[in-house]
Amino acid sequence: MIEAPALEVAQWFNTPTALALSGLRGKVVVLHAFQMLCPGCVQHGIPQAQRIEAQFERDDVEVIGLHTVFEHHDVMGPAALKAFIHENRLTFPIAVDQPDGDGGVPRTMRRYSMRGTPTLVLIDRQGALRFQQTGQVDDLALGALIGQLLAEAPR
Amino acid sequence: MIEAPALEVAQWFNTPTALALSGLRGKVVVLHAFQMLCPGCVQHGIPQAQRIEAQFERDDVEVIGLHTVFEHHDVMGPAALKAFIHENRLTFPIAVDQPDGDGGVPRTMRRYSMRGTPTLVLIDRQGALRFQQTGQVDDLALGALIGQLLAEAPR
Amino acid sequence: MIEAPALEVAQWFNTPTALALSGLRGKVVVLHAFQMLCPGCVQHGIPQAQRIEAQFERDDVEVIGLHTVFEHHDVMGPAALKAFIHENRLTFPIAVDQPDGDGGVPRTMRRYSMRGTPTLVLIDRQGALRFQQTGQVDDLALGALIGQLLAEAPR
Amino acid sequence: MIEAPALEVAQWFNTPTALALSGLRGKVVVLHAFQMLCPGCVQHGIPQAQRIEAQFERDDVEVIGLHTVFEHHDVMGPAALKAFIHENRLTFPIAVDQPDGDGGVPRTMRRYSMRGTPTLVLIDRQGALRFQQTGQVDDLALGALIGQLLAEAPR
Repeated sequence: MIEAPALEVAQWFNTPTALALSGLRGKVVVLHAFQMLCPGCVQHGIPQAQRIEAQFERDDVEVIGLHTVFEHHDVMGPAALKAFIHENRLTFPIAVDQPDGDGGVPRTMRRYSMRGTPTLVLIDRQGALRFQQTGQVDDLALGALIGQLLAEAPR
Repeated sequence: MIEAPALEVAQWFNTPTALALSGLRGKVVVLHAFQMLCPGCVQHGIPQAQRIEAQFERDDVEVIGLHTVFEHHDVMGPAALKAFIHENRLTFPIAVDQPDGDGGVPRTMRRYSMRGTPTLVLIDRQGALRFQQTGQVDDLALGALIGQLLAEAPR
Repeated sequence: MIEAPALEVAQWFNTPTALALSGLRGKVVVLHAFQMLCPGCVQHGIPQAQRIEAQFERDDVEVIGLHTVFEHHDVMGPAALKAFIHENRLTFPIAVDQPDGDGGVPRTMRRYSMRGTPTLVLIDRQGALRFQQTGQVDDLALGALIGQLLAEAPR
Repeated sequence: MIEAPALEVAQWFNTPTALALSGLRGKVVVLHAFQMLCPGCVQHGIPQAQRIEAQFERDDVEVIGLHTVFEHHDVMGPAALKAFIHENRLTFPIAVDQPDGDGGVPRTMRRYSMRGTPTLVLIDRQGALRFQQTGQVDDLALGALIGQLLAEAPR
């Protein structure tokens, strides 16, 4: 089992308290890494994350957005993200990935070795990293993956 | 457990030998009931059945079309269906539901108490009827259902 | 000016009286040639013809379907077409292209030298053939063509 | 004839020199007013503007984007817009609507009495304002409008 790396987060939106993967044991976690100015994220990734949130019970599946800014840092800061979340009416928790302090790839993104955005990550009920893909993921295939993880008994 | 009723079939296409649900134990079976002149079938059901066939290994998931003609019988006979299969390049096995001999609802459709077309049926590895829905089914939800059935151990 | 060839029609649906292109001078005519078992027609051509019918006033634009059966003749006869029209709730006039009597390309299709289905034909207010294309036509481009023909004064 | 109000522009992108409507007489002008964080603009308006640019010759139709920021001013400034243009690979000229200096509706937007974004404006070959609509515009209807304006002779 490869445990999913912990999230390093600078700031949270849409949640009263910070979330930690270690606190979500027992649920399937869908981590959607995006950038607000990435067209593939806006057109495919974000709407898919919203469909997942709508499809499954939150007791079963936790959808988390991760804003992994690795370019255009000056115009994708927290204030811009806040407006983006508001305009797109996003309601799932969204984390700002901790910047590396040097204008490069932020820390959680680096820990997961993500190759770009959007990247979708599935974490099982025991906290293991089970799926990670950069680019567009088909709804049917994604549903099947989530369904298989849901069928696994919590430890 | 509710065992899925056996198929009553007048004729098969796209398979050298007749299939029986009892012979498919160990696989998840997706039964797609349609009529070739039903717009919802042509626009949504058939393409979805093709996506399922493409997505999963045939050792895991068997897609079967069931032509449940309950109206316009004279123009949806086997010759018309054959042309439809050819033009739409369908490659999964397709069964002609056995007519009731009286111009009414055909026999398999009646056994399953289907309320129209398209109707999607999921049968688990042990032959139990696990899901049945008439109308459009969402890819993400359907994927999750199939994924959960795939995760169940064959007996 | 190339005058659009007259239609040779075996039977009409959705109109109390037969139509003739010569009787439609003053209108832009959109002729949509299709076969009921042609997937590109069902998925793209027919819905586009319905959008055109919905978009324009019938005093300006007349949409006519032309069922140009050149294959699978035995299963695309008038009774099958009637069921197809009913199931798809088509309301524009639809003509059955006159068979050649020999199982080949029907007569109107031959007169227009159409290369397959779907084929879209635009005829101007004076009866001239102004556009013909087999395959999928983009809505924006098609709208512009119709708009330009509408802007021409009736003679 | 209602002459289209002149553009008041703070900054241009994708053009070596500033454009003026008065300098575009003879062409049909499609003015697409948007905000980079407006979901309807990103999902519908911007792709439609790109389709228009691709469909018509630039000698006939000039597509101009107008960034009419009336909310979230601090995160939709020129630097953010520049990143947005880059990420979405937009190639048509885009003007930043002149702010009113008071955080309200920018000047060109006010001159046109636009009610929100996206707003599509069509200007004819003589510079007259011929169509304006806020919200989603159908491709077929829009094509017909452009086609009719194209059919009008330049003065």
